Amino acid sequence: MSATEASAPVTNDVVAGEVDTIVTIAAGAASGWAALEPRRRAGALVAAADALLSARSGLVAIAMAETGLTDARLNGELTRTAVQLKLFAETIVDGTYLDVRLDSADPEFVLGPRPDVRRYLLALGPVVNFAASNFPFAFSVAGGDTAAALAAGCPVIVKAHSGHPKLSVRTGEIIAAALEAAGAPHGTLQVISGQAHGVAALQHPLVRAGSFTGSIRVGTFLAQVAAARPVPIPFFGELGSVNPVFVTAGALAERSEAIADGFVTSVSGSAGQLCTKPGFLFVPASESAALHNRIVHAVSGLPEHRLLNPGITAGYRDRRDVILATPGVTTIAEGSLRIDEDGYGWATPTIVAVSAADLVVSKASLSEEAFGPLAIVVEHGDEKLTDITEVLFEGNLTGTIHLAPGEDSEALRSLITWLTAHVGRVLFDGWPTGVAVTPAMQHGGPWPATTNDTSTSVGTAAIGRFLRPVAYQNAPQSLLPEALRDANAWGVPQRRNAAGESASWGNLTA
Amino acid sequence: MSATEASAPVTNDVVAGEVDTIVTIAAGAASGWAALEPRRRAGALVAAADALLSARSGLVAIAMAETGLTDARLNGELTRTAVQLKLFAETIVDGTYLDVRLDSADPEFVLGPRPDVRRYLLALGPVVNFAASNFPFAFSVAGGDTAAALAAGCPVIVKAHSGHPKLSVRTGEIIAAALEAAGAPHGTLQVISGQAHGVAALQHPLVRAGSFTGSIRVGTFLAQVAAARPVPIPFFGELGSVNPVFVTAGALAERSEAIADGFVTSVSGSAGQLCTKPGFLFVPASESAALHNRIVHAVSGLPEHRLLNPGITAGYRDRRDVILATPGVTTIAEGSLRIDEDGYGWATPTIVAVSAADLVVSKASLSEEAFGPLAIVVEHGDEKLTDITEVLFEGNLTGTIHLAPGEDSEALRSLITWLTAHVGRVLFDGWPTGVAVTPAMQHGGPWPATTNDTSTSVGTAAIGRFLRPVAYQNAPQSLLPEALRDANAWGVPQRRNAAGESASWGNLTA
Repeated sequence: MSATEASAPVTNDVVAGEVDTIVTIAAGAASGWAALEPRRRAGALVAAADALLSARSGLVAIAMAETGLTDARLNGELTRTAVQLKLFAETIVDGTYLDVRLDSADPEFVLGPRPDVRRYLLALGPVVNFAASNFPFAFSVAGGDTAAALAAGCPVIVKAHSGHPKLSVRTGEIIAAALEAAGAPHGTLQVISGQAHGVAALQHPLVRAGSFTGSIRVGTFLAQVAAARPVPIPFFGELGSVNPVFVTAGALAERSEAIADGFVTSVSGSAGQLCTKPGFLFVPASESAALHNRIVHAVSGLPEHRLLNPGITAGYRDRRDVILATPGVTTIAEGSLRIDEDGYGWATPTIVAVSAADLVVSKASLSEEAFGPLAIVVEHGDEKLTDITEVLFEGNLTGTIHLAPGEDSEALRSLITWLTAHVGRVLFDGWPTGVAVTPAMQHGGPWPATTNDTSTSVGTAAIGRFLRPVAYQNAPQSLLPEALRDANAWGVPQRRNAAGESASWGNLTA
Repeated sequence: MSATEASAPVTNDVVAGEVDTIVTIAAGAASGWAALEPRRRAGALVAAADALLSARSGLVAIAMAETGLTDARLNGELTRTAVQLKLFAETIVDGTYLDVRLDSADPEFVLGPRPDVRRYLLALGPVVNFAASNFPFAFSVAGGDTAAALAAGCPVIVKAHSGHPKLSVRTGEIIAAALEAAGAPHGTLQVISGQAHGVAALQHPLVRAGSFTGSIRVGTFLAQVAAARPVPIPFFGELGSVNPVFVTAGALAERSEAIADGFVTSVSGSAGQLCTKPGFLFVPASESAALHNRIVHAVSGLPEHRLLNPGITAGYRDRRDVILATPGVTTIAEGSLRIDEDGYGWATPTIVAVSAADLVVSKASLSEEAFGPLAIVVEHGDEKLTDITEVLFEGNLTGTIHLAPGEDSEALRSLITWLTAHVGRVLFDGWPTGVAVTPAMQHGGPWPATTNDTSTSVGTAAIGRFLRPVAYQNAPQSLLPEALRDANAWGVPQRRNAAGESASWGNLTA
């Protein structure tokens, strides 16, 4: 992707005109939506969640037809998406997220007389959210990025993923109607489709931020579009990850069957089309025979699973062919890939093995993400693992270690240190798929896992991406926003920095 | 600045080699500095502050010779810089800044069984800080960006400003020695000089963030360098601002003399070379005569003040010439600009007037920042002020309103709403220069005031720019970072999300 392409994407006048209409409506909704008392905005999010749940059977039927994902998976995902909207309602309802800071005026302040300063976080304004293919509910029209941006007080324009167009339109209608019935301004949620429309929206002067879940290629392109605007805006892209897992000899000795089973489940769930799918499993070569046998056993019972769309099918076929043809790669479970007349792939898991030495030699063929039900077991000897990881991996969403109980060593601690510097979440004795949506969750990581590793796209901290601070100095009470007034009618937490508290700071000594 | 230039700045091999050595040393210091217990890192910051205070007379003498700023201003700035280091020590000492969040494992969690997840904020790694010309202490080697990044646990490489080279080297020696004597790793603070070196450092793969205070042209260029890296990094640039001030008829009727005096003081302090200098003063034309007279009076007593360097002098001369030659502009106080044989300017304040209508017509000549002791009084009639501001101004650091006590109106509220959307700090009945370094301060604003309006470069919240979150899932206690363990030996605040607390969330209804 050259800089020239990034700064001049193809957008025709018709597209620009259509997008201008949509963005102008979103901008018109911005101040009203942002100014709602948090508990009222929370109420609208809950109404949207309930509307989603009420429409469950119809939406799941559309999603099954468009994505090939299972009924169970889609029902679970719809529930998660609705509850996620409620979780963000819970996150904003008491106003803690506003981070209200009140400095009392202080003539004795250690850095010189200090005025009354009051700061809180404001919604950025209209956000464009590029939906993902692989979570038609949870990372799409009503998904995590939308929930976080709406909770922050930003109108959202979702660029629908081409893999589930009808579902996107229908979900958008349901959420928009529910929000508006609950008091949100018209245009608080809108859906557009088409790549040119998405790029034009990201370039529109009234758009204030972008979010994205998808490929490194497209995410990098869009990040450069956002950065090359006359007025650059923040762009939060979640791009790709191979999520290495490391298993110690002690862990294998204790529970190789459970590890093999868990690995296969994590690789094959949703046909491996998850950003946290474990792409590499590092095991000591001397202990791996039993693991291989159990992997074969675990894979053998699994049925074919349809891939999301023909584009993902073609990408998976190409990556799988390259990996199977790479010198040093042997097959543990070859799996299958059948492509039907409509171009959709039907796959069973492919698990291969390679030595650490061969993996390093064939880094160019093997280290890139294979989006689908394929993983690589890496057999190593006494090499220092961090020497291998340093060569192989850039940033990742996750890194996982399986240990024996109480196990500890310098090598282990070095690996934890390396993972801490290169991933957003370090797991022990578990699997990275199935990301919990909680206050402490971190779903993000150094490039190219994300474009911006200082934020998360899952968990309640995700709201922070769509807020900016503003301070008021010496403002009359009646002209302050409600949350910053002494009367505090909304009852939000206000962190007060009292006059006189700095008296000791100037005297701090080493 | 074309994208092509931005992606391929000129850096020769010698420069790249020198910079590689420096950055490698910083990277070597990163893990040790970040891993220090916060109270030990705070102690090192206090030691650096005390070393700065001890070296006061020598440093101020160098600074006076290199910048032309006054003894009083430089002594005050050095004190502020030292106390600022102590304030950041105070900010980190108790560990609140780590934002520790502990999710207890919860099999009944509303979104499905939840693992034990523990999240906190980590230092990003080496930061390159491009120093400013106009604050040789407070926005330079030991200044705010350095203090915030060091407090976060990041080693800092300061690219010295060419306006005060000796001061930069000497300050760097003092701070580096004090930090290392207090337990910081070698290379925690380093100083480099030269534009090519600065660009090469920003491009170095081991550098993790950049900060900058300076012009829109250079800041935009550097922001594009950071975004065009193979691995993009966050770049925090504070670029430029004209800081409009609006005075109501009621305020003028009550205190036109005080307003005129305050305005002249704020425009002329440090020869107007401040990023928060009020560049525009909007007043009702019908009430402005008394104000003009008092401005002339206030300016008349002021002595010549040297500008910081020949480059700034040339820029100020050009902007001033353009403004004075613009149709419709009349002179209230013409002021003087004398350029000595070394190219340094010596200036007294220039205050001009223009009608709002003429200002809009001549936007291209008048709306850009004039860095120096010049400001424009804008006389308006019954026009809606927000119609004028919408045409004239992009993002600004500040916006100010002077009111009569108790004054309120729809027009006033519209102006406050407009300012809130376009600046980082809204002031009442005061002046934007003299930014207090406090918990609630916001020094940042929409483009082009800064490259990133979701952060601040002054105040304790500035530390957030140099941190990223990481989460640990199901980690054994002994392998967790100290701050995330149940035993909590550092005694940092830990926000616990207890099992069972989500029981009610799924039942939220609108």
